Amino acid sequence: MGQASAMLDTYPADLGRIDRQALAACIEACFDCAQTCTACADACLSEDAVTELVRCIRTNLDCADICATTGRVLSRHTGYDANLTRAQLLACVQACKSCADECDRHAGMHEHCRVCAEACRRCQRACDELMSKLG
Amino acid sequence: MGQASAMLDTYPADLGRIDRQALAACIEACFDCAQTCTACADACLSEDAVTELVRCIRTNLDCADICATTGRVLSRHTGYDANLTRAQLLACVQACKSCADECDRHAGMHEHCRVCAEACRRCQRACDELMSKLG
Amino acid sequence: MGQASAMLDTYPADLGRIDRQALAACIEACFDCAQTCTACADACLSEDAVTELVRCIRTNLDCADICATTGRVLSRHTGYDANLTRAQLLACVQACKSCADECDRHAGMHEHCRVCAEACRRCQRACDELMSKLG
Amino acid sequence: MGQASAMLDTYPADLGRIDRQALAACIEACFDCAQTCTACADACLSEDAVTELVRCIRTNLDCADICATTGRVLSRHTGYDANLTRAQLLACVQACKSCADECDRHAGMHEHCRVCAEACRRCQRACDELMSKLG
Repeated sequence: MGQASAMLDTYPADLGRIDRQALAACIEACFDCAQTCTACADACLSEDAVTELVRCIRTNLDCADICATTGRVLSRHTGYDANLTRAQLLACVQACKSCADECDRHAGMHEHCRVCAEACRRCQRACDELMSKLG
Repeated sequence: MGQASAMLDTYPADLGRIDRQALAACIEACFDCAQTCTACADACLSEDAVTELVRCIRTNLDCADICATTGRVLSRHTGYDANLTRAQLLACVQACKSCADECDRHAGMHEHCRVCAEACRRCQRACDELMSKLG
Repeated sequence: MGQASAMLDTYPADLGRIDRQALAACIEACFDCAQTCTACADACLSEDAVTELVRCIRTNLDCADICATTGRVLSRHTGYDANLTRAQLLACVQACKSCADECDRHAGMHEHCRVCAEACRRCQRACDELMSKLG
Repeated sequence: MGQASAMLDTYPADLGRIDRQALAACIEACFDCAQTCTACADACLSEDAVTELVRCIRTNLDCADICATTGRVLSRHTGYDANLTRAQLLACVQACKSCADECDRHAGMHEHCRVCAEACRRCQRACDELMSKLG
């Protein structure tokens, strides 16, 4: 049980139709993925083969920023504006997919890329799941 | 001409088909809007009528985060992944539209909301313009 | 054990004298605190007594931004620049202290402030602990 | 005249003893520097000599995050908590100094590093100036 779920339990207002468990899981996946992508970019910068990882570093940085913002938008429980939430979730799904695909290409060589690809896939699934619950 | 444009002129790689002027204008509009929305949320918190501005504050905070991330993604010139760029631009257009609409409702009463609505409309147009050039 | 620790285990370079456990704990505390403060600001905005919580919301927003940045800087393992790491950790300690003190004042009334004050204290201690290990 | 200054003019509350011009200049320098460092990291990733620029990329990324957060904290006019403002300004001065020093080492070879070093020095001076006015 994570921090996002603990905070959701204290929320003073009605959360509307939103699925609390899917919301908490998605917030936590976004923050985890933001941390992992930031760390993966730095680990890539430490590899001798950094020239082959330039695209991976860029995708990591984009994914880190997009996941961080998505996690913040979701932490505001902005059910009041489903269009905004859905648009940001779609961007997050795209960023996680791009980053997971790129990290997968290096997963056999670099353990940090393997772990990062998993975090991206987890976040992508959590966003998809939450969108399917938004109706 | 601003900082984003000065940096674009120094870029060592081919920027591809992207319209440099539209890109620089969009980056600058995103950073401006992120600052303005952050300041507008704070100004709203200073109003006696803060209870009537709660929705405005939330939209400001979402818009600030989304514009900041969009400005960073664009600063990485990630033409290599047009799907990601376009998805984040779409989220930014939605955030700017929501925030401008909400700020417009208070623009007669609160000058900061009037200035902020203008910054949001400018950013929305810059994102639309850039998307139309992405092809 | 969390995501930050899993990524640290894959780091390809020497981490120098840094205490891995203290580093991983601090990164995770920073990300947790950033999420919690973002959610607490939003919960405060949902309270009828929002006018009494204006200062709490501001401190929450500052603390969220500062913890998020500190978590990113630490995720880059920037042992190479201890002055920078230490300066950002000092800012984080100050932000967590301010936010915990303010949230504590409302903890009896608002459960989200009680949970948030705890997250801030945890993050403050984790930063202090890491600084003591930086030598 | 920039956006931060326009928003300051609409602020509904007393800003206290703070020097408005120094505050607006510092906010704008922080947002400019955040954009420039993000773009410089990406430009470095596009250089053939990326292996020699790894340290520069890391410092750019740290400086971008720290300047962005400092710009946000200042946009909240948190005169109410001078300790927090000062601690974050000190971290920002340190980040700008580190990044300017590193970029200066490559300024002869890479125009983006030259422009970035200038933005960092400008931001460092603006933070120093604001701190001297905080009393």
